[in-house]
Amino acid sequence: MQSEVKSLNEECGIFGVWGTPDAARLTYIGLFALQHRGQEGAGITVNHDGELRTKRGFGLLTDVFDSPNAVADLDGQAAIGHVRYSTAGSNLLENIQPLPFNFSDTQFALAHNGNLTNAISIRKQLEDRGAIYHSSSDTENLMHLIRLSQAPDLDDQVKEALNIIKGGFAYLVMTKDRLYAALDPNGFRPLVVGQLPNGAYIVCSETCALDAVGAEFKFDVQPGQLIKIDDSGITIDQYTTETQLSICSMEFIYFARPDSDIYGVNVHSARKRMGELLAKEQPADADIVTGVPNSSLSAAMGYAEAAGLPYEMGLVKNQYSARTFIEPTQELREQGVNMKLSAVKGVVKGKRVVLVDDSIVRGTTSRRIVKLLKDAGAASVHLRIASPPLRYPCFYGIDIQHVSELIAANHSIEEMRQIFDADSLGFLSVESLIKAVNLKTIAPNQGLCVAYFDGKYPTPLYDYQKEYDRDQAQLHAAKMR
Amino acid sequence: MQSEVKSLNEECGIFGVWGTPDAARLTYIGLFALQHRGQEGAGITVNHDGELRTKRGFGLLTDVFDSPNAVADLDGQAAIGHVRYSTAGSNLLENIQPLPFNFSDTQFALAHNGNLTNAISIRKQLEDRGAIYHSSSDTENLMHLIRLSQAPDLDDQVKEALNIIKGGFAYLVMTKDRLYAALDPNGFRPLVVGQLPNGAYIVCSETCALDAVGAEFKFDVQPGQLIKIDDSGITIDQYTTETQLSICSMEFIYFARPDSDIYGVNVHSARKRMGELLAKEQPADADIVTGVPNSSLSAAMGYAEAAGLPYEMGLVKNQYSARTFIEPTQELREQGVNMKLSAVKGVVKGKRVVLVDDSIVRGTTSRRIVKLLKDAGAASVHLRIASPPLRYPCFYGIDIQHVSELIAANHSIEEMRQIFDADSLGFLSVESLIKAVNLKTIAPNQGLCVAYFDGKYPTPLYDYQKEYDRDQAQLHAAKMR
Amino acid sequence: MQSEVKSLNEECGIFGVWGTPDAARLTYIGLFALQHRGQEGAGITVNHDGELRTKRGFGLLTDVFDSPNAVADLDGQAAIGHVRYSTAGSNLLENIQPLPFNFSDTQFALAHNGNLTNAISIRKQLEDRGAIYHSSSDTENLMHLIRLSQAPDLDDQVKEALNIIKGGFAYLVMTKDRLYAALDPNGFRPLVVGQLPNGAYIVCSETCALDAVGAEFKFDVQPGQLIKIDDSGITIDQYTTETQLSICSMEFIYFARPDSDIYGVNVHSARKRMGELLAKEQPADADIVTGVPNSSLSAAMGYAEAAGLPYEMGLVKNQYSARTFIEPTQELREQGVNMKLSAVKGVVKGKRVVLVDDSIVRGTTSRRIVKLLKDAGAASVHLRIASPPLRYPCFYGIDIQHVSELIAANHSIEEMRQIFDADSLGFLSVESLIKAVNLKTIAPNQGLCVAYFDGKYPTPLYDYQKEYDRDQAQLHAAKMR
Amino acid sequence: MQSEVKSLNEECGIFGVWGTPDAARLTYIGLFALQHRGQEGAGITVNHDGELRTKRGFGLLTDVFDSPNAVADLDGQAAIGHVRYSTAGSNLLENIQPLPFNFSDTQFALAHNGNLTNAISIRKQLEDRGAIYHSSSDTENLMHLIRLSQAPDLDDQVKEALNIIKGGFAYLVMTKDRLYAALDPNGFRPLVVGQLPNGAYIVCSETCALDAVGAEFKFDVQPGQLIKIDDSGITIDQYTTETQLSICSMEFIYFARPDSDIYGVNVHSARKRMGELLAKEQPADADIVTGVPNSSLSAAMGYAEAAGLPYEMGLVKNQYSARTFIEPTQELREQGVNMKLSAVKGVVKGKRVVLVDDSIVRGTTSRRIVKLLKDAGAASVHLRIASPPLRYPCFYGIDIQHVSELIAANHSIEEMRQIFDADSLGFLSVESLIKAVNLKTIAPNQGLCVAYFDGKYPTPLYDYQKEYDRDQAQLHAAKMR
Repeated sequence: MQSEVKSLNEECGIFGVWGTPDAARLTYIGLFALQHRGQEGAGITVNHDGELRTKRGFGLLTDVFDSPNAVADLDGQAAIGHVRYSTAGSNLLENIQPLPFNFSDTQFALAHNGNLTNAISIRKQLEDRGAIYHSSSDTENLMHLIRLSQAPDLDDQVKEALNIIKGGFAYLVMTKDRLYAALDPNGFRPLVVGQLPNGAYIVCSETCALDAVGAEFKFDVQPGQLIKIDDSGITIDQYTTETQLSICSMEFIYFARPDSDIYGVNVHSARKRMGELLAKEQPADADIVTGVPNSSLSAAMGYAEAAGLPYEMGLVKNQYSARTFIEPTQELREQGVNMKLSAVKGVVKGKRVVLVDDSIVRGTTSRRIVKLLKDAGAASVHLRIASPPLRYPCFYGIDIQHVSELIAANHSIEEMRQIFDADSLGFLSVESLIKAVNLKTIAPNQGLCVAYFDGKYPTPLYDYQKEYDRDQAQLHAAKMR
Repeated sequence: MQSEVKSLNEECGIFGVWGTPDAARLTYIGLFALQHRGQEGAGITVNHDGELRTKRGFGLLTDVFDSPNAVADLDGQAAIGHVRYSTAGSNLLENIQPLPFNFSDTQFALAHNGNLTNAISIRKQLEDRGAIYHSSSDTENLMHLIRLSQAPDLDDQVKEALNIIKGGFAYLVMTKDRLYAALDPNGFRPLVVGQLPNGAYIVCSETCALDAVGAEFKFDVQPGQLIKIDDSGITIDQYTTETQLSICSMEFIYFARPDSDIYGVNVHSARKRMGELLAKEQPADADIVTGVPNSSLSAAMGYAEAAGLPYEMGLVKNQYSARTFIEPTQELREQGVNMKLSAVKGVVKGKRVVLVDDSIVRGTTSRRIVKLLKDAGAASVHLRIASPPLRYPCFYGIDIQHVSELIAANHSIEEMRQIFDADSLGFLSVESLIKAVNLKTIAPNQGLCVAYFDGKYPTPLYDYQKEYDRDQAQLHAAKMR
Repeated sequence: MQSEVKSLNEECGIFGVWGTPDAARLTYIGLFALQHRGQEGAGITVNHDGELRTKRGFGLLTDVFDSPNAVADLDGQAAIGHVRYSTAGSNLLENIQPLPFNFSDTQFALAHNGNLTNAISIRKQLEDRGAIYHSSSDTENLMHLIRLSQAPDLDDQVKEALNIIKGGFAYLVMTKDRLYAALDPNGFRPLVVGQLPNGAYIVCSETCALDAVGAEFKFDVQPGQLIKIDDSGITIDQYTTETQLSICSMEFIYFARPDSDIYGVNVHSARKRMGELLAKEQPADADIVTGVPNSSLSAAMGYAEAAGLPYEMGLVKNQYSARTFIEPTQELREQGVNMKLSAVKGVVKGKRVVLVDDSIVRGTTSRRIVKLLKDAGAASVHLRIASPPLRYPCFYGIDIQHVSELIAANHSIEEMRQIFDADSLGFLSVESLIKAVNLKTIAPNQGLCVAYFDGKYPTPLYDYQKEYDRDQAQLHAAKMR
Repeated sequence: MQSEVKSLNEECGIFGVWGTPDAARLTYIGLFALQHRGQEGAGITVNHDGELRTKRGFGLLTDVFDSPNAVADLDGQAAIGHVRYSTAGSNLLENIQPLPFNFSDTQFALAHNGNLTNAISIRKQLEDRGAIYHSSSDTENLMHLIRLSQAPDLDDQVKEALNIIKGGFAYLVMTKDRLYAALDPNGFRPLVVGQLPNGAYIVCSETCALDAVGAEFKFDVQPGQLIKIDDSGITIDQYTTETQLSICSMEFIYFARPDSDIYGVNVHSARKRMGELLAKEQPADADIVTGVPNSSLSAAMGYAEAAGLPYEMGLVKNQYSARTFIEPTQELREQGVNMKLSAVKGVVKGKRVVLVDDSIVRGTTSRRIVKLLKDAGAASVHLRIASPPLRYPCFYGIDIQHVSELIAANHSIEEMRQIFDADSLGFLSVESLIKAVNLKTIAPNQGLCVAYFDGKYPTPLYDYQKEYDRDQAQLHAAKMR
């Protein structure tokens, strides 16, 4: 039962806009560009002359807003929205964001991307004082902390609350007369500010959403900042100055859209450079280069260019594969039935293929793709991974929580090669990853969070420390056997 | 009212299998690989010990089969399925295929890809004799002709009926004890036969569906052939010997999946060669090459390789764009809001871009994409089309029916360049198209139908002749003004 | 498989109107008053300036027209509608009426209440000539016969077709410019004509639908009549003069609404008289009289009044019992769980109860109700049935087809009393039934069909004769044992 | 905005069971018998080995539990359920009951029938302390008060909380190991305890739900009682001894089901006595008596019996009228279109009719029914109301909140007669109402709440006092004009 009461919000997309007609439609369009950040739920809260109304539900945006009127009904001049990624415990509507709060004399709505590391402790403490939580989401903590604050005005109440929560977070908080945006002290999650031609401000997870709505990029929100947008304009404040930039490197490797820029770095270009450096570190004697569609295509282009090999379409992804209720039986799967990926026989037959993938988590997909290519007649398959081996969990908002699931935490590279039945296997080094991202302002190992690769967490782990220690001990014991 | 009574079935996908457990699931998986051929409707008819049951509906396969049981309920050893593309008049469930027919003593199911050119005449003639049609689909004609045939057995009845209908067609006809497949005398539409490891035969529109279900390709069905599959195996017959191969070139250019082979030619490779020849015929002084995702990427790769220019990801397609009920208002659209395509600023800014597209129909998309790239900072945009200008309608199953809608039928290339605001514009020649497809066995202008480019139709137009003459006259008059 | 190809339309309600604005809404309201005649499917065909559009589906009217726009979308000046009752084979949308037919140059829609006794023969004969049926409904026969007729005009074609079909039927046939209504030569099914204040004519199954739409009753359609309504008014014709009135007595006993009049006789009043005559024929030594809600309340009132006993509410029917997906388990049922009917303990406790029911088919309900009253403390239960024992099947449109299901065909009255655990049991005689209905113009046993009570069918049985003979032989054999 | 934050729960039905297999199914069946108490929403919380799961939604039970599995999925040994009636502000899923509460270490579910008179004050006070409410329902207050209580154990926390809330309430509170039931100090709302054959206890709103699930009635819960049911059996406690019985008389007049007993009085019998006394107080020179179906039939039977007049079915209610999306237009309505009620012409034509109705709120229905009967030919209509004129609002759970809506608060009896176009009009006196209900143990005006008739409220009005005073002042001013 109590398993529902844990933090679940990870890898989400948020979008907020203040001061423009048709705010909900713009938010829908912005979220549509952020749909890759979460497909399990979606919602929009609109501010109509000071009254907040929320519509939210399970599934894709197109599932939740499933008629032309669904957004038209949300008339207003400001809005925040959310697309949600989640794993276990996701089947509660109460957890879908934005979370709406109605008080006798006011209303709030909250949307959040990230993961709080002290959510369980805070909740226990507040419940002992009589608090009632209605979701099992860590997001709700901020609302309770704001309401319990004794600070004289709302700005100070929000700041006080932000100083209590820990972890990775990008928060949007809307009331009847303002929109707050706040980023954690390490800037783990991306958050940018843009402006529409009519002057209205937007704050959202990625620049691709600014492009989608025709807004101009203004700036990246900085660690520890609290942004306030209201009818008088935008105000930038710091709720803490104890900050240290640690942008999540998985955003560059896999998660963000290729057309987005994070801290001035284009994601596609960073991936292409990862591929180029990978070609240098891990060359292969091959005829063609192909990538796993769609997230690895940039790295594959970079590898091909640097290696002087032809870049080819060796794999085709079914573009309707988003969701199907009908799956092959296990028997059919073993007979080679594959609904999502196909090898292009005419391309790979008889060829020595470099197969570029962005990362490896459990390794099951890698094995299937190598087999797919060999069944299609590839002479050999050289698997190249455009990021370092994933060996440690993430507690700041990426869904990698248990080392037991990480194949690279449990096996050597040669063991993995055998498991995948690849002819060779190579990973990008952490140094090259940092070089490829090429954040202008940072010293080595600073600015970019690579904790899942090297285990060096930039913050204490709070509620997760015990879990982490137990997992590491189990891993160590397993390796001893 | 009577507008419903016209032929509507165009650009569809069909799949049939005989003699294997879980036939409906295999058909679903096969259709899933053919979903690009039609998204307006789908259906499966299963044969369960001689009893036929049909499930069909509007939308994608995942809309029609919207629960895990939807296919499991269709238990049987043989099945045929259909994915449907349609334009006007599509809102009749009766038109969704397979069309089921129940007689006092037997059952039939029909699925069809193509367009009959004498459907209206046949229907009028049969109705005058008392026949009642229940769909407005041209597909139904074959059933009436079979039942009215006085031939002694079903094989001969089917052959007699096939000799009456004209146009482009690939037909599947299932009864309680057999599965027929028939191709028109010109082989306009693709149709292939494969075999599962357990010996069961499959007949379907493209080889990608054979790959998806783990079947081995056996042969391309030839013009005028009638295939019969039953419990005793496969029989190949000709219902007519007056045949002349005229494969639809648009299948290679745009319609088929890149991993499919048609008459031994891989579609991706053919497109890449189109891009290579386009680079030679229509070079450009540029820095990078980018394609319109997803159908033009192969041609763009070929252009880049032949031109010695970097192949880049200058445009990103939203992978969730399949369908949304919420659209930007006209006002938002003019402000640059775009939900489907984004330009990658970090890639195109300041660059001279070759933009490769597979074909141009109305031209509205081309103008928007050129603008998108220029707004993102492209120094110049050189639009290159990997096929010749579309100037004539198709009556064999591709949805190009009125020249008034074809921008190339109404404007010169320079006029189009200005409309698109491109810095230059170039098309592939018909000769290079034929060379790129490179069908082994054919003489120039034979084997490949290019009638939409040159107006030379390989058959009489029957019911469409009058419409065609009127359209050409109007076009001529318009050009005179 | 072929079991689908049999006649299925029984006990339905039909409604048609010609020449008034908002015709579909009126038809909806009229059908709503006829919903008791069929709950398995519903549909409306509207005539909008000569174009026919049909909406139909499974379930109640409120299931099919499930939004305010569902009827508003059907704009037109004439319409026909249907509510459908069915047993096996009902899960085909094609069978839901009105049946729409689209020809190259015209359209038809058909709605039908009744059952044809030569439907199977006609279909076989026409299929051998090449006809294709698309429903498994007997209704469709009329359309084929009309189209195959060589008569010079539509009026004659319809008459010719009506003379071929046999059995019980009330038909509505709408084309772009007229509405036909036809009744079988025995007038088995009720059909009335009314007129709106604006002059528009209505033809429908019961007068309660005329009241619901504010129309004035004009006349009962007579056996063998063909009514034509078009923009020039109403025309009354006879397609045959070989007629003999045989109104279905079950309409008076159970099926029609109490506020309807049939051939001038109010249904509630007829039922009350049945109860009065029942009290005289089958008196009981009791304290109170109660009826099974809702269809037996009129008869119970009559019984109480004639017997000089208090009329009481001894049973309450759950008014939300229309449909529920959740049923008691068998175990719960045996523990006395009952979701539809409750005994009123405060009323029946310690009382000797006369329980009046309208009829007994299988007898399972009767046993349960007697038990319900005894469990609630009734001292004794005297079951009185306000109609004669049902012993023969009906082939004219009432769903009583097999004598094996009829408890009175298989058991004596004393055996039934024991099965029901009633303290006494009595039925109304056929003579009293005829007296209670009191049709003015008829000789004994003429005018009213009582074939299910006495086995004397007013017509040949055609396709059903063989089935009837077999059933009677089995029944006879069973009684011999 | 803030209008959502007010008390909304009125006239609901509740059902709880502890310690039996298939508890959710039993709860469904019990709620099904209570569906007349609320049709706007429904829900069930099941207790499965200590884990609580809730399913709730808008509409009827059959809408919320819309598949056979919907209840089967709720496996457990205890459950509580709720059917909800509501007016404004009902469109929040959060307000549908049972309300589920998840804490880090425990779970609660609450269901409630009634209305708290100090809900707004409590909420404001608790929000100032940092509390967050998630529904706008007054029900939620109890949960906050329980959690904020400093009492040593849960029993005492619940008692403390119950002593703070005011008004009319019957509460069910379920935790992992127990089920509480509590009644307000006046016993405004009905609440009874029963027992299944297997010993499991049930607590629910009316005895009809006990009958439906096959349970034996044990006792009426008394004012101020707190019942606790757990695995060790049932415990009866008093949370307060300051009680005074004031059962809602509208339960007897209109709201409860006729087969229910309240404090030992059968509802149908009480209504019949109301009719009998009404006949004596308000006789009429008439031919027949008819009631408005279904709630007034008992009173009409009593009137007919006492007056020695025939009881007749003069009106028929469409039994499918529960809900329809299609309504007559205003124009059609004026032409006499009526979808819910029909007059039986054959019965009322030419007759002098006594029309018995249970009560009059706004009076619009009365006017329409009188017109319906006169249009059907009634010679005269004598309207008799089996309860006193409604002149004051109710604050304890019946939806009569504003005197401006009450026709009897604004008009004399003669004025009303004219408005209704009745030939005469008579109401039952308060004294006869009390006599008809005939509660054994009560002195005049005690035991039965008749405040809506005489304005004498048995408790202070708390948050409603100001509203009440304002309404009375407006009413007074209006009468002065």
